[in-house]
Amino acid sequence: MKILVDAMGGDNAPLCVLQGAADALREFGDGMQLVLLGRKEVIEQTAKDNGIPLDGMELVDCRQVVTMHDDPVKAARKMTDSSLVRGLTMLKNGEGDAFVSAGSTGAMHVAASLIIRTVKGVKRPALATPMPGFKQNYLLLDCGANVECRATTLNAFAVMGSVYAEKVMGRHSPSVALVNNGAEDTKGTPIYREAHGLMRANPVIRFAGNIEPRDVPNGEVDVVVCDGFVGNVILKLTEGVAKSLLGMLKDVFMQSVVTKLCYLGVKGGLRTIKHKMDSEEVGGAPLLGTARPVIKAHGSSKAKGIKNAIRQARLCVEGDLCGTMEAALAELQTDETRAEKSE
Amino acid sequence: MKILVDAMGGDNAPLCVLQGAADALREFGDGMQLVLLGRKEVIEQTAKDNGIPLDGMELVDCRQVVTMHDDPVKAARKMTDSSLVRGLTMLKNGEGDAFVSAGSTGAMHVAASLIIRTVKGVKRPALATPMPGFKQNYLLLDCGANVECRATTLNAFAVMGSVYAEKVMGRHSPSVALVNNGAEDTKGTPIYREAHGLMRANPVIRFAGNIEPRDVPNGEVDVVVCDGFVGNVILKLTEGVAKSLLGMLKDVFMQSVVTKLCYLGVKGGLRTIKHKMDSEEVGGAPLLGTARPVIKAHGSSKAKGIKNAIRQARLCVEGDLCGTMEAALAELQTDETRAEKSE
Repeated sequence: MKILVDAMGGDNAPLCVLQGAADALREFGDGMQLVLLGRKEVIEQTAKDNGIPLDGMELVDCRQVVTMHDDPVKAARKMTDSSLVRGLTMLKNGEGDAFVSAGSTGAMHVAASLIIRTVKGVKRPALATPMPGFKQNYLLLDCGANVECRATTLNAFAVMGSVYAEKVMGRHSPSVALVNNGAEDTKGTPIYREAHGLMRANPVIRFAGNIEPRDVPNGEVDVVVCDGFVGNVILKLTEGVAKSLLGMLKDVFMQSVVTKLCYLGVKGGLRTIKHKMDSEEVGGAPLLGTARPVIKAHGSSKAKGIKNAIRQARLCVEGDLCGTMEAALAELQTDETRAEKSE
Repeated sequence: MKILVDAMGGDNAPLCVLQGAADALREFGDGMQLVLLGRKEVIEQTAKDNGIPLDGMELVDCRQVVTMHDDPVKAARKMTDSSLVRGLTMLKNGEGDAFVSAGSTGAMHVAASLIIRTVKGVKRPALATPMPGFKQNYLLLDCGANVECRATTLNAFAVMGSVYAEKVMGRHSPSVALVNNGAEDTKGTPIYREAHGLMRANPVIRFAGNIEPRDVPNGEVDVVVCDGFVGNVILKLTEGVAKSLLGMLKDVFMQSVVTKLCYLGVKGGLRTIKHKMDSEEVGGAPLLGTARPVIKAHGSSKAKGIKNAIRQARLCVEGDLCGTMEAALAELQTDETRAEKSE
């Protein structure tokens, strides 16, 4: 198995990418080869300066670097010698089995849509993010790639999320819920009501019905589906409320000598909560619906984040994520056609 | 000033309504008369049993009670002898200056739309909720009354929210932001992009631009505008994330004898946070856009919640909220007409 890694993407590239790649090879490198894309001399010098072994890694020299300031569409179309475009092109041509990058989400989304075809039944890939939940993590999609969605698109997201939850997150018979402003079937906009009906009748998912936003952070369901506008609100508001609350908590602990002592007693536990609420710790966000596996690591990923994203990529390849997803979507379409004919 | 109070609405009615009403009269009853609507004998017996003085309160006997299980539209149309419908009818007829209820939000929204006319430029009233923010509370609208909104409706919400923030929340020259998945003008759905343009050109508000959901809980802006679907997500997810985090925190404090002792040291501070995050503590949610002031207290309000809702009602009357809102919306419309003519 060959995993393509964008060595120049992300706030801490290339150092943390190299560290994460080396850690990945050491921890779960059996039968896995990594291909690092980027400025060859920068990669080699960084590795040398920091004593990072490059054994088992192939280097592909690319002269361009896509930054957060580059226009996504222009970058995807014109920067053909960038680690992003070269990596995705190699993936398309079968010169690698998965692609991992911590670079610009926008450019990656556009480039993946342009270079790699999407599976049948999906027009644009969805950004799925594993989110912190009280019981356990849940997969949220779409997180902002598609601000407007049809009901059929939401239904396709449900299938894609289910397949990912099963194949990569290891959830058995994952449950899927649709975000809505009430538990009843009649709630929401016409699109959400229609999506509810489609998901209810969808034979390839285990539909748990509507989920109220209040219950989303419980982590009781495995996959939470919504359009990209709402998903972006959930993603960022979760982070914002947690930050605001932890800020209030800090103020409480700073009040007096006694409260400062109390802080020392629960410091470890508080750090665990902070990590749990930190999206970086959870790992990368897959772009679902592409014909080959593409994993977006958090822009501010450290070595651990990169390592975890590579692990996700490995699981995607091993579980034949894209093939399974294409089959599941095809089954859904056959079923829809059959239903239409029998009507 | 006469404030109409639904004595039968809410989970803790009539006891907590009577207590809250009595507290309101004691604390800020100068020149204020309260009219309690509900089953007269139940009100009188409850007051007697609990030693609550009914001085300064007028009783209006209504035989029907709208419950959470009643269909909102049917309740609003047919339950003409309910405290809800009678109260709103009295408000419409000028037999009171404001109406307060902790009963069914749905029934109240429908009944208010049917019985009380809306101010010019508003088709359906919006539910506005004061939300907990890190710096200070902010007003969120719409919170779920209108799941789909046009750009002009969002712009009208901005005006309504501004007037409320100034007249009732006491904010000087309140700032208004539009929820969006990015700070740039070009972000969001076509409706949100159009709303951004309208709000940018709106002379009667101080527009702070788009606000990312991550920054909403900071409480840096006074009014946060979005459609009812997104507003419902923000309202309920804020509650859900806070609950989930406080649950994790509880687990941390329960780990050992030491952590339990630490809990005792910061118990007071934690209670303050919990109260701050608790929507009940913040007060009632006004229905904005009705021609006369209507305040929805939280369904699970205790005496304090009812008292605060009555205080809000008083402030609405004193500040001539509805008149000011109508004037501000009229100015906006004149401005729009003028702009259209000059084009």
